[in-house]
Amino acid sequence: MASDKGILIVLSGFSGSGKGTVVKHLLAKYPQDFALSVSATTRSPREGEEEGVSYFFRSREQFEQMIAQGELLEYAEYVGNYYGTPLSYVREKLAAGQNVILEIETQGAMKVKAEHPDTLLLFMTPPDAGELIRRLKNRGTEDDATITARMKQAAEETRVMDAYDYIVVNDDVDACAQKILSIIQCEKSSAKRNPELIEKFRLGLQDILKGE
Amino acid sequence: MASDKGILIVLSGFSGSGKGTVVKHLLAKYPQDFALSVSATTRSPREGEEEGVSYFFRSREQFEQMIAQGELLEYAEYVGNYYGTPLSYVREKLAAGQNVILEIETQGAMKVKAEHPDTLLLFMTPPDAGELIRRLKNRGTEDDATITARMKQAAEETRVMDAYDYIVVNDDVDACAQKILSIIQCEKSSAKRNPELIEKFRLGLQDILKGE
Repeated sequence: MASDKGILIVLSGFSGSGKGTVVKHLLAKYPQDFALSVSATTRSPREGEEEGVSYFFRSREQFEQMIAQGELLEYAEYVGNYYGTPLSYVREKLAAGQNVILEIETQGAMKVKAEHPDTLLLFMTPPDAGELIRRLKNRGTEDDATITARMKQAAEETRVMDAYDYIVVNDDVDACAQKILSIIQCEKSSAKRNPELIEKFRLGLQDILKGE
Repeated sequence: MASDKGILIVLSGFSGSGKGTVVKHLLAKYPQDFALSVSATTRSPREGEEEGVSYFFRSREQFEQMIAQGELLEYAEYVGNYYGTPLSYVREKLAAGQNVILEIETQGAMKVKAEHPDTLLLFMTPPDAGELIRRLKNRGTEDDATITARMKQAAEETRVMDAYDYIVVNDDVDACAQKILSIIQCEKSSAKRNPELIEKFRLGLQDILKGE
């Protein structure tokens, strides 16, 4: 009886919070429930990358036309190439009842939410600040400047955490994936996602009272 | 890591939606998680009713003093007697981590929410409008005037359904109770219920950046 349309989920979170791992696990464990958004890009395909699976590969002209025609949910330019999320793909999955996960950083998340207020914003964190700092320090590079830059970015991100709908603590990949599934299922019972259900009760009672 | 304080839950719903049955089931199945709010009243105890379990029995003077001192979450007068919800009892349970359920009608629900914005509002419905109408017609009395009055009240209630946080469809008592438990657990991960967690990440990162 709850809404059966999919929900657009924007997942952000601290570097080292384990977003990528949890998303992979979600998609593998609940393939019916979740779809990962596939990005469009102007960069060239690398070996093994497949059109429509890894990315939608587009020319610069095609991409700029998509921007001009409002066909992207969000986009950014990075090292001379465009990357963006095609709306049509997302809409198709949502209509089919799948929840679409978009893994993007906080600025992009705020933009998507502003334009699509139905978006569900999830922010992933390690269990606590101590653990976050340990992970930021031990992630790939040990270069001090890089570590400091990552910490500053994380500090910046804490400023918008309260604009998210849920804070998802990841101390166990499977538990975290289950928590996300559970949040989605609960959201589907929220009053704001069920205007049709409410309207059916309204009209049903109106009709019968008219008939009395 | 999610907030460990209890949540104040206001449960409303159509006559015949099965609120009472689901609440009993919740309390029996998850006694650690839920407490039912105990009302104060000025009416006399009936046989078998226990002070502090069935009600808190108070004199009219005592009750009016509670009103004057803001010690009631909500109250109403009904057939010459006061009924109300003592704040102290609710706060004690919430502080102990129990979620307190308050089963009240929509007007009372809106008042509680206005004064205590942290309140979680749940609205219970039968599976659909047809089933609602069948239940309204077959509930206790078959007196036409009473049935029409119940339908009008239900129609009135549909006007505030969208002010609730969740619409809980009850087509199976156990599934509905589990859904309520699940909603509470998800709510505990909501950003708005976790300002302390967010603040800890903020301060933790600030401190370490100052130390660099």
